[in-house]
Amino acid sequence: MVKARKFVFASIFDGEPKQSDFELQFEELPTLEDGDVLVETIYWSVDPYMRVQMPKLPVNSTMIGENIARVIESNDPKYPVGSYVWSFFGWRDLTIFNNNMDKKEKGGNHIPPYIVEPIANIPLSQRLASLGMTGLSAYFGLIELCAPKANETIVISGAAGAVGSIVGQIGKILNCRVVGVAGSAEKCRWLKEELNFDAAIDYKNENIEEALQRLAPNGIDVYFDNVGGELSSIVMSQMNEFGRVALCGAISTYNLKSDRTTNIPIQPIIIAKQLKVEGFIVNRWFMRWEEGVAKLSQWILAGQLKYRETISNGFDSLPTAFIGMLRGDNIGKALVKK
Amino acid sequence: MVKARKFVFASIFDGEPKQSDFELQFEELPTLEDGDVLVETIYWSVDPYMRVQMPKLPVNSTMIGENIARVIESNDPKYPVGSYVWSFFGWRDLTIFNNNMDKKEKGGNHIPPYIVEPIANIPLSQRLASLGMTGLSAYFGLIELCAPKANETIVISGAAGAVGSIVGQIGKILNCRVVGVAGSAEKCRWLKEELNFDAAIDYKNENIEEALQRLAPNGIDVYFDNVGGELSSIVMSQMNEFGRVALCGAISTYNLKSDRTTNIPIQPIIIAKQLKVEGFIVNRWFMRWEEGVAKLSQWILAGQLKYRETISNGFDSLPTAFIGMLRGDNIGKALVKK
Repeated sequence: MVKARKFVFASIFDGEPKQSDFELQFEELPTLEDGDVLVETIYWSVDPYMRVQMPKLPVNSTMIGENIARVIESNDPKYPVGSYVWSFFGWRDLTIFNNNMDKKEKGGNHIPPYIVEPIANIPLSQRLASLGMTGLSAYFGLIELCAPKANETIVISGAAGAVGSIVGQIGKILNCRVVGVAGSAEKCRWLKEELNFDAAIDYKNENIEEALQRLAPNGIDVYFDNVGGELSSIVMSQMNEFGRVALCGAISTYNLKSDRTTNIPIQPIIIAKQLKVEGFIVNRWFMRWEEGVAKLSQWILAGQLKYRETISNGFDSLPTAFIGMLRGDNIGKALVKK
Repeated sequence: MVKARKFVFASIFDGEPKQSDFELQFEELPTLEDGDVLVETIYWSVDPYMRVQMPKLPVNSTMIGENIARVIESNDPKYPVGSYVWSFFGWRDLTIFNNNMDKKEKGGNHIPPYIVEPIANIPLSQRLASLGMTGLSAYFGLIELCAPKANETIVISGAAGAVGSIVGQIGKILNCRVVGVAGSAEKCRWLKEELNFDAAIDYKNENIEEALQRLAPNGIDVYFDNVGGELSSIVMSQMNEFGRVALCGAISTYNLKSDRTTNIPIQPIIIAKQLKVEGFIVNRWFMRWEEGVAKLSQWILAGQLKYRETISNGFDSLPTAFIGMLRGDNIGKALVKK
């Protein structure tokens, strides 16, 4: 008998999530049946979207999220023991899944896990980062929705995060002027000195309006938004006509206590500048996943794309890592390691 | 010597425009020179965009706006006496213009007036309404930016206004389900009983959220927005995935005292539903103007497109007509007649 651990969503978040919103539960896993595969998760991804998605699910649901797991016992020849899978098991340490359609519900296996082959010189953890949902959000969101042209100016909010840091570097590969907005001097230094951003603005210590005028003197053509709220209204008010905005996240609004906030009305700005604003969830490009992974890993191996990870250790640290990520404590991708 | 009257923008609007924000001025027009044309305006259009545009111009500028004017004296054979021109002379009664490029500044002639030929059974005033900027905003904004398909549900804010009333009827011509949001029972009655809207919601007296759930049971595919603000967040929160939003106006925000307001954050909604939101100014389709006028007049003559006008009488009534239109006093197009 194997005992598994999981974190469930114990109470509806009220403002910033607290430790008590997560409850550690234990579960005895049954003996493996035909087709069953037992995996242990090695890496968990913690991402802003979980703050938005969990309250839509019933209380006591297992916390959701993508993972990299290792097969430790297998009754399915497609998943040999020792192989690694990308999965969406959430905040669990041990999971049994079964890919037969009639056993679909087993182990929370709504999205079929797929085997990830190691790529030399790229750590496995990056399968949840530059080669995972966040890297692919950057790749498809920027290229498909914003279609940046050489010499255009791209502004990125949440620029030192898992998505933003990749967006900016792709912008540089495409010969754009890239300006990042981030929440500390250290983050800004990283963007400029290591990731080759043209400029970075510390929104906690600088006047964003004035800084944008100075650092994006030809106006802003593309805005890749991970933050939302008033910051976005300020950025969009300095965009050029027919600018394009990709809405990837709105982290500034996720921890708001009520659903009302003080804001600068955004519609008049979108009209006056004839902007095109599109929200997206990366799985709309699910059929092109491999294309994105191939391109991004090629850039990483060529040294054109750098990454940074903020890794917390141990399954128990999941709530803390998640709460810290929402506060902006991470630089690059926030992950938890077994 | 001819004496002309004009209204200038006398002080920056603070909240709702007041009579004292407009100053009536007199101007002696010079004798006509070679190529000069003297016109008297017959109809003035008053539109929400003026509330936004004027504060961007210097105080003492002539109030802007489109007009239909009649040629009363002409030194340009292209403009015979008695012909009518569409123009953008603003709030003036008599104007001299000259279409020679070197005299471009004469009479505020930034946009060349063009001759409008009368269309039997359509009053001249409709050249500023269903066949003017507002009708063309409805036509191009809906068709080009929202691409509605048969049986889709379209929601329109400001539905009883000059743009919204045309949008809804085009939606019906395209076999969509059309739900209008307007500000009185009388407006709603007009939309349903005369314009053939499937449903109308009186936002001042109904719970919009509940009404939309009931009247758009399959969700909302297209939102044509003339109002902005919190109403738009409520509508967009009931949209279907991959819905399309055309931002034509944001009249709810134009009279706000400061540039801050209470709002429901709109970015999380746009992301979760993967909406495409585009702002527009109708002159981006200037080269296709004739196409729009031809199509719209054809629908009017076929009885498929109805219109209503709220006409104020006399040049002096311009400020009152404008202030009333911003309050929503009009049904259909707000105009001033000589």
